[in-house]
Amino acid sequence: METELIDKLVTKNDKKIIFLIMDGLGGLPQSTGGQTELEEAHTPNLDRLAALGTCGLLDPVGYGITPGSGPAHFALFGYDPIEYNVGRGLLSAAGLDFPMAEGDLYMRANFATVDAKGVITDRRAGRLATEKNEAICRKLQEKINLSSGTQAFFIPEKEHRALVVLRGGEFCAEIAETDPQKTGLPPLEPVELTPQAKKTAAIMRELTGKMKDVLQDEETANAILLRGYARYRRFPSMAERFGLKPLAIASYPMYKGIARLLGMTLACATNTPEEEIQALQNNYPAHDFFFLHIKYTDSRGEDGQFAEKVKVIEKIDALLPDVCALNPDVLVVTGDHSTPAVLSGHSWHPVPVLLAAATCRPDLATVFGERACITGGLGRLPMKCLLGLALAHAGKLQKFGA
Amino acid sequence: METELIDKLVTKNDKKIIFLIMDGLGGLPQSTGGQTELEEAHTPNLDRLAALGTCGLLDPVGYGITPGSGPAHFALFGYDPIEYNVGRGLLSAAGLDFPMAEGDLYMRANFATVDAKGVITDRRAGRLATEKNEAICRKLQEKINLSSGTQAFFIPEKEHRALVVLRGGEFCAEIAETDPQKTGLPPLEPVELTPQAKKTAAIMRELTGKMKDVLQDEETANAILLRGYARYRRFPSMAERFGLKPLAIASYPMYKGIARLLGMTLACATNTPEEEIQALQNNYPAHDFFFLHIKYTDSRGEDGQFAEKVKVIEKIDALLPDVCALNPDVLVVTGDHSTPAVLSGHSWHPVPVLLAAATCRPDLATVFGERACITGGLGRLPMKCLLGLALAHAGKLQKFGA
Repeated sequence: METELIDKLVTKNDKKIIFLIMDGLGGLPQSTGGQTELEEAHTPNLDRLAALGTCGLLDPVGYGITPGSGPAHFALFGYDPIEYNVGRGLLSAAGLDFPMAEGDLYMRANFATVDAKGVITDRRAGRLATEKNEAICRKLQEKINLSSGTQAFFIPEKEHRALVVLRGGEFCAEIAETDPQKTGLPPLEPVELTPQAKKTAAIMRELTGKMKDVLQDEETANAILLRGYARYRRFPSMAERFGLKPLAIASYPMYKGIARLLGMTLACATNTPEEEIQALQNNYPAHDFFFLHIKYTDSRGEDGQFAEKVKVIEKIDALLPDVCALNPDVLVVTGDHSTPAVLSGHSWHPVPVLLAAATCRPDLATVFGERACITGGLGRLPMKCLLGLALAHAGKLQKFGA
Repeated sequence: METELIDKLVTKNDKKIIFLIMDGLGGLPQSTGGQTELEEAHTPNLDRLAALGTCGLLDPVGYGITPGSGPAHFALFGYDPIEYNVGRGLLSAAGLDFPMAEGDLYMRANFATVDAKGVITDRRAGRLATEKNEAICRKLQEKINLSSGTQAFFIPEKEHRALVVLRGGEFCAEIAETDPQKTGLPPLEPVELTPQAKKTAAIMRELTGKMKDVLQDEETANAILLRGYARYRRFPSMAERFGLKPLAIASYPMYKGIARLLGMTLACATNTPEEEIQALQNNYPAHDFFFLHIKYTDSRGEDGQFAEKVKVIEKIDALLPDVCALNPDVLVVTGDHSTPAVLSGHSWHPVPVLLAAATCRPDLATVFGERACITGGLGRLPMKCLLGLALAHAGKLQKFGA
């Protein structure tokens, strides 16, 4: 495997690498003959970097495959996104900094509303207030005791979201999700999907039955839907694999979770891009790899707001000189996947990337945009290969063979 | 494997995909500084589609590998051309709609002429008349009885070609071909190539001996040469893998055979591109994937007729508006491989491709040609990845991971 060869060639030095990740960066034109969000944006600083550096287009998982943020970020950090595909529950647990242990089963939960017949009328319980969520989780934690030594944990997240954990046995994740992913249906039964999962399914039935009892008096959050089951899994860290001392600067739990799973140090809480860059400056001496995550490009894409996504890109461009002022040895600017505003969601289109370093070979791209990146020297390549290229440009890889 | 991941992400909808395949489309200039057949052709309709859509270059099997039509078509339909490489005998059997059964051994046969010493003087028996071929096959069928319960079938194809089938046992395909592929040599012995093939080789020797006896009085077709041995093999259908209801519109047996092996429905017999497009229009409501095969680009290339190949491309371009008028959600125009007229045969050069869909990302290609496709947004990619891209652009693939 390509990544394994890279691992064997790693050599340490004090060169610094910054990955500036604009989530969902890639886009599409609003109409025939138009420009993408990135092409439309006025980005003199990114364009200058693109002209100096090497550009290309990244496929997060494979041709035609639309990735979730999990697989896409694993690929960005040099981890094969198929091999390291993990359930959402594990990412939630890591994002919440839940003290994970071998054997645990993690589940993503949504509080939901069901009618008198038990049919789901709102999968998000009216986007429940976070305080209410916290109160209900406390109630579940107090009242629910499972038989046969199994412990359940109920950890609130924002709004209607929560993490449910089972501990005290060797659980199996091959259980049907109880979230039917749409309204008009009752929650599904957590039946076993393989014979090995029979024991876990029995515990899950006990759990869902007792949760139902506790929730029945709630007004809106009178049901809970489970999905994204995942067992605990230990990942080889970026320190182990690449000899890096990585710092993650991200404000959303899921991205923090991925960073934790890969052994990154997390910067103190940040909310705005300005705060994120401040955190980068403050922590610059102590690390040699920096993952700086900008969520808003994706959010505006998801919301279908073309002009707003353009503005976010322009804002980041305006902040770029502060990043460049640190003189990183390698500066990579890219996204984890495309989120074209016209599709209001993730897509399979490749993601523009620029890599700026003193060791870059110049190419034909003179601005940063999807079309310009076609003429980039990196060509079109799997996203999981990007980290190896960054290490190479930072002099962190030895020669292969004599 | 990438293709297996695609399979898992398939979701059905009523979007329609057309694959317009100009066999052997890719070409080469006739002389230094010249244009390829596709570049030379006046193709305003293809150029318009290329400008609107996304272009690229496909490698049918791998860098430098010249594919036969079998592997190239498997790749077009998303089947790994190395994993699914099958003997020509099986393709012939499928093309003739021979009722195949488990255990059968299929062989491609050529009637040939040998001299008094048994040396081949013509590998095609003077391109035997098809009626004569039919008469000889009837004679072989009547006169040849094999021992130990093995049945042999002799099925005429066009001119000097036939299909020979062994049934009634578990045969082994690892037997030497008896066709030496050139004149001046006698037919070869069907010796076993592995110890496991010993029993089959004995039956093959009985078969070739008895065929020789029957044919010895023939004037021109006094020998038969066997090659392309293949055992029966069941393929996962395009319906099973991709949830498609595919229709094949092709006039040559081999392409029909591949379509049958992959579970496509075959349109009624068609002979001209006009009839093929008529068949497309007639069957449009009942299917969601259409394989429209144009043979003549390849034939003119094989014959070394540059100007004639250009004319075929121009003719298809003129018919293109009738295809576009159906408003397919995804329209792909490409070839299965390159057949440059200057080489009078298949070649390893990548094949230009255009993919037009509302969900396309525009690129730098504004005309359809080999050079323009270098600036296409698809880049250069394995042909087997094309179908996944078509599915993605038609909204037929779910997101991978959370």
